[in-house]
Amino acid sequence: MLRFLTSGESHGPTLSCILDGVPAGLPLSVASINEDLSRRQQGYGRGNRQKIETDKAEIIGGVRHGITTGAPLGMLVRNRDFENWQHVMSVEAVDETASEVIEQMQKKAIERFRPGHADLSGTFKYRQHDIRDVLERASARETAARVAGGAVARQILQQLNIEATSHVLQIGPIKAKAIDPNMPLAEIESIVKNSELFCADADACESMKELIKDTWQKGDSLGGIVEVVVSGLPVGLGSYTQWDRKLDGQLAQALMSVQAIKAVEIGDGVQASQDLGSHVHDAIYPGSEHSAYHSNLPFSRKTNRAGGLEGGMTNGERLVVRAYMKPIPTIRVGLDSVNFPEFAGDKAHYERSDVCAIAAASVVCRAMVCLILANAVLDKFGGDNIYDLKKAVDDYRQFCQTPKFAKPSVQAKSGSPSGSQSMSAEQAKEPTGNEDAAGEF
Amino acid sequence: MLRFLTSGESHGPTLSCILDGVPAGLPLSVASINEDLSRRQQGYGRGNRQKIETDKAEIIGGVRHGITTGAPLGMLVRNRDFENWQHVMSVEAVDETASEVIEQMQKKAIERFRPGHADLSGTFKYRQHDIRDVLERASARETAARVAGGAVARQILQQLNIEATSHVLQIGPIKAKAIDPNMPLAEIESIVKNSELFCADADACESMKELIKDTWQKGDSLGGIVEVVVSGLPVGLGSYTQWDRKLDGQLAQALMSVQAIKAVEIGDGVQASQDLGSHVHDAIYPGSEHSAYHSNLPFSRKTNRAGGLEGGMTNGERLVVRAYMKPIPTIRVGLDSVNFPEFAGDKAHYERSDVCAIAAASVVCRAMVCLILANAVLDKFGGDNIYDLKKAVDDYRQFCQTPKFAKPSVQAKSGSPSGSQSMSAEQAKEPTGNEDAAGEF
Amino acid sequence: MLRFLTSGESHGPTLSCILDGVPAGLPLSVASINEDLSRRQQGYGRGNRQKIETDKAEIIGGVRHGITTGAPLGMLVRNRDFENWQHVMSVEAVDETASEVIEQMQKKAIERFRPGHADLSGTFKYRQHDIRDVLERASARETAARVAGGAVARQILQQLNIEATSHVLQIGPIKAKAIDPNMPLAEIESIVKNSELFCADADACESMKELIKDTWQKGDSLGGIVEVVVSGLPVGLGSYTQWDRKLDGQLAQALMSVQAIKAVEIGDGVQASQDLGSHVHDAIYPGSEHSAYHSNLPFSRKTNRAGGLEGGMTNGERLVVRAYMKPIPTIRVGLDSVNFPEFAGDKAHYERSDVCAIAAASVVCRAMVCLILANAVLDKFGGDNIYDLKKAVDDYRQFCQTPKFAKPSVQAKSGSPSGSQSMSAEQAKEPTGNEDAAGEF
Amino acid sequence: MLRFLTSGESHGPTLSCILDGVPAGLPLSVASINEDLSRRQQGYGRGNRQKIETDKAEIIGGVRHGITTGAPLGMLVRNRDFENWQHVMSVEAVDETASEVIEQMQKKAIERFRPGHADLSGTFKYRQHDIRDVLERASARETAARVAGGAVARQILQQLNIEATSHVLQIGPIKAKAIDPNMPLAEIESIVKNSELFCADADACESMKELIKDTWQKGDSLGGIVEVVVSGLPVGLGSYTQWDRKLDGQLAQALMSVQAIKAVEIGDGVQASQDLGSHVHDAIYPGSEHSAYHSNLPFSRKTNRAGGLEGGMTNGERLVVRAYMKPIPTIRVGLDSVNFPEFAGDKAHYERSDVCAIAAASVVCRAMVCLILANAVLDKFGGDNIYDLKKAVDDYRQFCQTPKFAKPSVQAKSGSPSGSQSMSAEQAKEPTGNEDAAGEF
Repeated sequence: MLRFLTSGESHGPTLSCILDGVPAGLPLSVASINEDLSRRQQGYGRGNRQKIETDKAEIIGGVRHGITTGAPLGMLVRNRDFENWQHVMSVEAVDETASEVIEQMQKKAIERFRPGHADLSGTFKYRQHDIRDVLERASARETAARVAGGAVARQILQQLNIEATSHVLQIGPIKAKAIDPNMPLAEIESIVKNSELFCADADACESMKELIKDTWQKGDSLGGIVEVVVSGLPVGLGSYTQWDRKLDGQLAQALMSVQAIKAVEIGDGVQASQDLGSHVHDAIYPGSEHSAYHSNLPFSRKTNRAGGLEGGMTNGERLVVRAYMKPIPTIRVGLDSVNFPEFAGDKAHYERSDVCAIAAASVVCRAMVCLILANAVLDKFGGDNIYDLKKAVDDYRQFCQTPKFAKPSVQAKSGSPSGSQSMSAEQAKEPTGNEDAAGEF
Repeated sequence: MLRFLTSGESHGPTLSCILDGVPAGLPLSVASINEDLSRRQQGYGRGNRQKIETDKAEIIGGVRHGITTGAPLGMLVRNRDFENWQHVMSVEAVDETASEVIEQMQKKAIERFRPGHADLSGTFKYRQHDIRDVLERASARETAARVAGGAVARQILQQLNIEATSHVLQIGPIKAKAIDPNMPLAEIESIVKNSELFCADADACESMKELIKDTWQKGDSLGGIVEVVVSGLPVGLGSYTQWDRKLDGQLAQALMSVQAIKAVEIGDGVQASQDLGSHVHDAIYPGSEHSAYHSNLPFSRKTNRAGGLEGGMTNGERLVVRAYMKPIPTIRVGLDSVNFPEFAGDKAHYERSDVCAIAAASVVCRAMVCLILANAVLDKFGGDNIYDLKKAVDDYRQFCQTPKFAKPSVQAKSGSPSGSQSMSAEQAKEPTGNEDAAGEF
Repeated sequence: MLRFLTSGESHGPTLSCILDGVPAGLPLSVASINEDLSRRQQGYGRGNRQKIETDKAEIIGGVRHGITTGAPLGMLVRNRDFENWQHVMSVEAVDETASEVIEQMQKKAIERFRPGHADLSGTFKYRQHDIRDVLERASARETAARVAGGAVARQILQQLNIEATSHVLQIGPIKAKAIDPNMPLAEIESIVKNSELFCADADACESMKELIKDTWQKGDSLGGIVEVVVSGLPVGLGSYTQWDRKLDGQLAQALMSVQAIKAVEIGDGVQASQDLGSHVHDAIYPGSEHSAYHSNLPFSRKTNRAGGLEGGMTNGERLVVRAYMKPIPTIRVGLDSVNFPEFAGDKAHYERSDVCAIAAASVVCRAMVCLILANAVLDKFGGDNIYDLKKAVDDYRQFCQTPKFAKPSVQAKSGSPSGSQSMSAEQAKEPTGNEDAAGEF
Repeated sequence: MLRFLTSGESHGPTLSCILDGVPAGLPLSVASINEDLSRRQQGYGRGNRQKIETDKAEIIGGVRHGITTGAPLGMLVRNRDFENWQHVMSVEAVDETASEVIEQMQKKAIERFRPGHADLSGTFKYRQHDIRDVLERASARETAARVAGGAVARQILQQLNIEATSHVLQIGPIKAKAIDPNMPLAEIESIVKNSELFCADADACESMKELIKDTWQKGDSLGGIVEVVVSGLPVGLGSYTQWDRKLDGQLAQALMSVQAIKAVEIGDGVQASQDLGSHVHDAIYPGSEHSAYHSNLPFSRKTNRAGGLEGGMTNGERLVVRAYMKPIPTIRVGLDSVNFPEFAGDKAHYERSDVCAIAAASVVCRAMVCLILANAVLDKFGGDNIYDLKKAVDDYRQFCQTPKFAKPSVQAKSGSPSGSQSMSAEQAKEPTGNEDAAGEF
């Protein structure tokens, strides 16, 4: 089981995370983590903060000589900007009479709630006397730590030939063309990484950029839709057996937990709610020939409207999930709001911000999906070390290609585990004399 | 903290659940639970199963003389239909040579995977030799246990004057008119419960019924959209501080975990992704007069596009969440599929089923939302008994009406808890002589 | 991961439990569960309740035709005594003016706290108006549900040739002789089950019985020590990597959570705290010949003072854990106490009770140990079905016999998972053209 | 709910931890955390490592201007010794041909398993090719991070006038005199902190030091017993309602999870197992006059053999728990062992180590107890901010002093929450017209 916690504030000294449960023996590429971190900072329409930061993961636990040890992975992502916020964000109490403190505090003061943010609710919930105590942690800057964790999860998956990519489907009203479902993941990834908006449709991307520019000039902001696609997943990750073991539910939580995401869709979920059953469900065919996604399974499909999930489990097709992002709530035109702590009418606080962060969101969403999937893999196959994990996945994949389903014999009925082939060492050494006696346990 | 597990199969003897963490002192209405169970069975377009069952909750733990005791709530919902399945669903091994066993087994045999169901993936995952071992648990009949649990959660919320309702927004392409956001919950509830499809728009409901009838005649099936609305929630349930404490994420998991749900939306999340920020975010105004939802808070809003959630927390407005349901996958026209265990081409298995179960889904979705919200309430306010819970919520509501936000003094710096007003009994009795000495701990 | 919740009161209609996460394909012996339940009721010195009850497990979910399906296991253990408590323990409100209700309520009324029980604290915590609302759930009768769950866990372990037994080491001051550490588990089990006190030392058992009889005549009660012994455990269950993954900690929680247990010891833990390191630690020798417990591992030990656990993990030796039970708190001689709700001085409530329940505790402790160990096995090896689980354990046992420890190559450094042998189906089908390009992910 | 994870290796760059769920508004004394860290390094009989390190907590998240914000607390404790291990413990791959790398690697190589450590089992479990990959994380150095986390938990408790101390009861066979149970906590703390072995019995302390010196000269090691004592706990923390909610079980896990702890005892648990019930249970008396521990409760006790826990809950008396520590397994005299990876006979690896670390263990055990208790407090009372938490605890303490236990009316029976006093704002604003109609929900 993977457990993942993050810590740190937007302008504090550093973000950190602990990812507990990473298998031993994984060769970990810090360069690959940093590439993900860098991508999170990119995207046309981002604010100035991204110019200040060049996020790097600093591993402080769980890795030795480039290989994971099985110990919890600790990581830091430093905030370079902290040096401009040392008084405002000081962990220790500050001298409130010092002029430099007063100056910085005044400059960074935030006294009006921003609609669409955590500001208002957080201030009441935690009885904050300063709105900044909310926004510093609520800020999407925290997703840098998530991306670092997700990048590790992705490297676990890659060892199993599971690959994940993500791209921008829509910004404001501008939709990208759907990706050819047969396009290899590596090809999508290659196109996407060369797009300024991580969009696989170059024409749409140009229009999106125009729109972002216009919107910036108007002092407004934009949201959009991202899609995460994962290939190579074995059949049967997740489970239908208990409500919180369903993989679709876990993915929905992970994606909805990303700042500004307000809707989550599996496959063609939104459209499917309006169609007839005969048009929605993905027919199954014998043999693997209809599948662009896998080979050698004794069945395949021509469509993937289910997004690779049926009954809360992966079904052998590509996983396709989408997250709908609202526009950035910090906008120059200024929404009506109230100030704090007087609650008198005023315009919302504004500071320079992104106009559209959907490209970044696509990176974060992939990270969250990878964390959930890596956990699902470890849950099904065990996960103390990469060698055993690979073997278990390989064995299972082979079973799926030429499955045999035998009815178990009801051997326990006699109360005896005697027929078991996997005689333990102790059993082998201890002559029980009479198997039936043992059976009386 | 609430914990909720269910057990039981669709045609087994009984469903059961355990809801751990219910406060003591809650007067529990079994009639109200049963009303929810009954509603889950209703809705135009349901199959024959609902005529066989009349679901009733049988409480087997945690309640005495009508009042919860703080002990885990155990509940059963019997399957009347079990009597027709006694051999097929026998817990004990059966005599496979007995003619009555053979007959029933043959009659109920399922040998072809149904696209859109858990059948295929579940059979591989668990190495089942009989598809029925999957579908019996994957079946949405399990949601009867969820509704029982959710009904208890709803009664916890009702003690705090938090009310939840749900209704059908759309079936296939037919949309209901949006509900007046100022309509009192009780009024919505009253309209909905008198609708054959739990739809608040009587005209749309008629069209929906026509569509269902037509679809049934064609042997096809339908999905739709349900909306859950909750009023009376205090500001600040959930949290922005850690990814899995975000209430929107928890709600998304709970809803997506419901059978056949393929998308989840908070407020106007889908539409918001296409709009400008200035059109999406809900401006804040001083005073409570603009709010239809609450009074006496020092702020209010004219819109609620955020669905009552900002920053992963409730914001004082009504909670509005939507679940998108795919059409029932069991359809008479027959999808292409493969048989088992040969994986040869065949038509999917069909047995009588619902044409559209969206009305039932609306009841299940409300139940899941109530479970999540009751947990959020207990997390924030503590929850050993209803009396303390009510008092904590009342105190907090009063604080929110006339809030004072004081900067805490950094008293611990001196290392001494001496200034604390809430001197414990032990401290009071034990003369420490020198407060500063105690402070050196 | 196994999850286990129980529900139900001592004199309510039924106890129940849900055990979530049981692998599919396990032939489940209900007779074996019932044997454990029966043993929990035995032991010289028990009260009358055990004559009323004949505990049987009624499986209501997760098993079909004698085989687990992967679905959560639901079980009931009925309280036959409920029929004598129908008014007192009614779930529904009762007519408090009816004479039969009044009579039963008076007869069963409890108005004085019993020192050593949950009565006092529970009444305050949950603001109960009737002490019975506490004691009904706090009662050790709840352990019947635990034994049912633990019996299922034990059957999982038995499939892997892991066997668990338990016995009574001490009652009051009377100690049994230590068991020969080389005695096969089946032999211990056989001796123990034929002992009236589940004690492997027949002479001590006679003295214990005398003591119990004497103590009963004096109106007093006794505690003692039980030992749980488990053989066949693979090396490396549990983990040292995070505080709550340590198997010794998990076992300590599980045992201490059993009613009346006040101390838990791993191996010779209490004595070890007083000895020199050179006398405590179990030296390791090459080859398997010194081991009575296993064979074929490349090392063995002559002693097992660590009780089979080092660093929070199993080490290949037998697991030996001990639980120290306080005397039954309900005693006829009568402790000073106060009444309720006046808090005036009085004697504690007394009703017929066990004099000594240590034999029962030995059965419950084994059940709890089995639940923890089955979870540890599933965590390490994955657990969707028994076939895969057995194979994973077998493979690992073989590795442990002839281990090879290779340094992983730091292949991820190049960013490419290309060298991986376990090419997934999708990868195999998708020609990537340029491996290095894929490597840039 | 508190969640606590640590990361980091013994000779890696830094230890870290995340403590999620700390209430906002807590004035946090870093000096107090550092005092605890310093004490963990003390104690007669420690090895050289403690001279190298001067542990300090560096807070990297969750605190601003000396006050917690409600965000997760992130902390680092740097390993100064890392500079001597930069090649051996490098996160990145090292140049294995560089002479300085070769030299350091050889100097620090560990090739023989140490009995009593995680070395052997961990190497198999995680398929390590280097024993160091196990011991670096298994090392008790990790407890520095636990002490940092526990120190924060203790400051939460101190706000509620709950104080915790710990002391050494026994080293090897030398027992300290029992502490006067009426001695104020502050006095115990004051004595203990001035003792070289954190032992409250000065004479015993001298003998213990002698013994440690002797033992060191013989190249052997020692264990012992520590006791944690907590005052000011309200009645009813923890719960009897579910096995894993029992506070005694949670405490047992937390203590047993500390490196080298092999037994855990609540109150006089070990002795209690041998005594008669009439001698073990703590009689209850009316009025508060018999209690040294609290005042103003309507009951008190003359004894505290239960260690402040009954039925898995605090009972108003002092919490007294004990942990039994085995002797340090690294001993100069050298235990028989096998080497790696040949498994040939050899002496166990030895490097300078502590002779006795029981004083340090006393600090760690207090930290773990504080983490569990702070979580129990937050579970019962809610915990978004210190102000609400204090108020809830104060209110409950007042209730406990003059309790009134009313039977709840079975009001929900009518289906209506109408009688509720805590009318929410929405309800107040929405005229329901007919209360009974609302009741039909």
